[in-house]
Amino acid sequence: MSIEQTTLARAAWSRLAEPGDVVAHAVVEALGPVDALAWLRESVAGHEPAVPGGVAGLAGPAALARLRTAVARWAPRLASLDPTRELRVLARLGGAVIVPEDPRWPRAMDDLGPQSPLCLWVRGEADLAAALRRAVAVIGARACTAYGDHVTAQVAAGVADQGWTVVSGGAYGIDAVAHRAALAASGTTVAFLAGGVDRLYPAGNARLLQQIAEAGGALVSEVPPGSVPSRSRFLQRNRLIAAAAQATVVVEAAWRSGALSTAAHAATLLRPVGAVPGPVTSAASAGCHRLLRDGAAVCVTDAGEVLELVGRVGRDLPPERATAPRAGDDLEPLLRRTLDALPVRRAAAPEAVARAAGLALVEVRGALGRLDLAGLAVQRDGLWRRAACLNGQAR
Amino acid sequence: MSIEQTTLARAAWSRLAEPGDVVAHAVVEALGPVDALAWLRESVAGHEPAVPGGVAGLAGPAALARLRTAVARWAPRLASLDPTRELRVLARLGGAVIVPEDPRWPRAMDDLGPQSPLCLWVRGEADLAAALRRAVAVIGARACTAYGDHVTAQVAAGVADQGWTVVSGGAYGIDAVAHRAALAASGTTVAFLAGGVDRLYPAGNARLLQQIAEAGGALVSEVPPGSVPSRSRFLQRNRLIAAAAQATVVVEAAWRSGALSTAAHAATLLRPVGAVPGPVTSAASAGCHRLLRDGAAVCVTDAGEVLELVGRVGRDLPPERATAPRAGDDLEPLLRRTLDALPVRRAAAPEAVARAAGLALVEVRGALGRLDLAGLAVQRDGLWRRAACLNGQAR
Repeated sequence: MSIEQTTLARAAWSRLAEPGDVVAHAVVEALGPVDALAWLRESVAGHEPAVPGGVAGLAGPAALARLRTAVARWAPRLASLDPTRELRVLARLGGAVIVPEDPRWPRAMDDLGPQSPLCLWVRGEADLAAALRRAVAVIGARACTAYGDHVTAQVAAGVADQGWTVVSGGAYGIDAVAHRAALAASGTTVAFLAGGVDRLYPAGNARLLQQIAEAGGALVSEVPPGSVPSRSRFLQRNRLIAAAAQATVVVEAAWRSGALSTAAHAATLLRPVGAVPGPVTSAASAGCHRLLRDGAAVCVTDAGEVLELVGRVGRDLPPERATAPRAGDDLEPLLRRTLDALPVRRAAAPEAVARAAGLALVEVRGALGRLDLAGLAVQRDGLWRRAACLNGQAR
Repeated sequence: MSIEQTTLARAAWSRLAEPGDVVAHAVVEALGPVDALAWLRESVAGHEPAVPGGVAGLAGPAALARLRTAVARWAPRLASLDPTRELRVLARLGGAVIVPEDPRWPRAMDDLGPQSPLCLWVRGEADLAAALRRAVAVIGARACTAYGDHVTAQVAAGVADQGWTVVSGGAYGIDAVAHRAALAASGTTVAFLAGGVDRLYPAGNARLLQQIAEAGGALVSEVPPGSVPSRSRFLQRNRLIAAAAQATVVVEAAWRSGALSTAAHAATLLRPVGAVPGPVTSAASAGCHRLLRDGAAVCVTDAGEVLELVGRVGRDLPPERATAPRAGDDLEPLLRRTLDALPVRRAAAPEAVARAAGLALVEVRGALGRLDLAGLAVQRDGLWRRAACLNGQAR
């Protein structure tokens, strides 16, 4: 079977079956897409589908009933099937259909198992596999706040700067900001759409989506051109985002949010999930806090911590956060206590310092000498006080 | 040995030994506080301490050396010892010393083991044990933001409203707001101080601390009146806060913050720790995010979630967060997909709906009937469309 035939047949199947149809997946896997299509035509013509041999997940007495229902689902769309025309439509838009038999197929999709897509309709960047080799999903609420906007831009730009592709859903709000920030950073960004890639939905993002396709990124969908982005397709689309990226980060999400379904898919796939915290007074962060509270996500606050989710030590790990050390911060307890007991202005005898510190005189004598060496204590005529630089740093 | 003698002796020991002195604790435990004091005087007089029999943690050949150093630490303060006078000072301020032998002793302190305080100097509420039976620590940065201020007030008031004592450190910032909110809610609040309870430190909180002592709460310290709040005492004080409360909540904390040391003590004691998230753009929340990221704290966003840390099911647990359900939210997939495929305006035949939904005609017929019953679909002359209430709710 040529790759062209296979591609055409899978394109047809993506029209026949709705996203996530495990029966379609099983039949196509068992028979191959071309023969599966022939089998479907025969089944419809003969009014009774033959159970194909060795169909995974379709064994046992219930198999025939499930297949019969499935064929009845697919049959209404069989008459209007025209994948050649749809491929032509897509080609005019600079797109192609990628199938699992194609080397450009992003292998990460296979982790979805029986729910992996039958094919991917791609507009823009041809080598989707390369684009998704190092990819992070940055997703969130449509109704984002200025805060979410700001953090998303920081995170997406930082991720793109490190050569990671930013995956998102092309929606208003967080998704759009993530795509835009990646573009602005000259990074690669991929939008997974719930409807056909010929439809630049939502309309307000049409220009952005166009840019993504033209700037070396891609618009991707598992449903063919002309398909409307229905609610169930949105929910199914979320699993593709989760599978496409090596980690998923939710920036802002309401208590109930589609972004949480994407996070749940990522968790199912054992992909790390990050959540960006926000003010507890903001409803737009309630979903993120829910993920953190449930232990379903790791708290991430910047691009460095996001890359830590997917990173390899020594390469993507950010440097340890720099903290300004204060004089005397790292003293061992004995020195610390002696320093605490040292007067700032009027110098004191070691005996008085020992009493104040609750230490033995011999300990204090040793400690004073070491504090002197460290420049933290000064002595004159046998009396001790703190070095000037430490004033006001008792704690 | 009478409780008065025991109390006096422990008061003396709290002057001799600095907070967290495990050797003092071991000697006092082994000999009893009164005999331990006599033993110390003899050891100092004889210039060589006798190892008391059966001192926990002081066995083996190193014991004598450790004891000798300890005696040398305690000795300088022996001369000026005057617990009777200190108790009198405290009594004038409306205070008392509570010792482990006293029924008013908060048993939670015992969880500190060899680091448990030798006694507690308490000003205000006499029955500390009762006040700490249901207590939550609300702590955080001195340099708090308006956001931290707001959330602290909400959390502390909510906790106090449910009859829980608010424990904190009496410092500026989050601590002060927590105490104030508890007072405003007519709740009980307890401040653990690093210095003596006669010193209302910091000076700017003097009025607040006074109010705490007068409003049925308490100021508590393990160091006697007159003691200065040194840095090492602050760090030791933190373990008392962690031990006193059944859970510790950090509202705002910088990347390095004393509040994190309290949280670490709480974790060591196996007490639950909560952290309130905030904007990732706020340095005042960096410590909280650090706790969340390290898995050292649970994400908490309100008083209800704080009480969940310590709560008993059915009593302190908050109700499930109410969410406004949308029509069609809880539909099973078959109904959902049929509803998605139903036109909003121009009604369609079941065959067209089946094709749009990617479902079998028989499935769609059944689904339409059930959607009709649920008031989500309407039929006229055999053609179907969505019920009016659903317009604009495709997703």
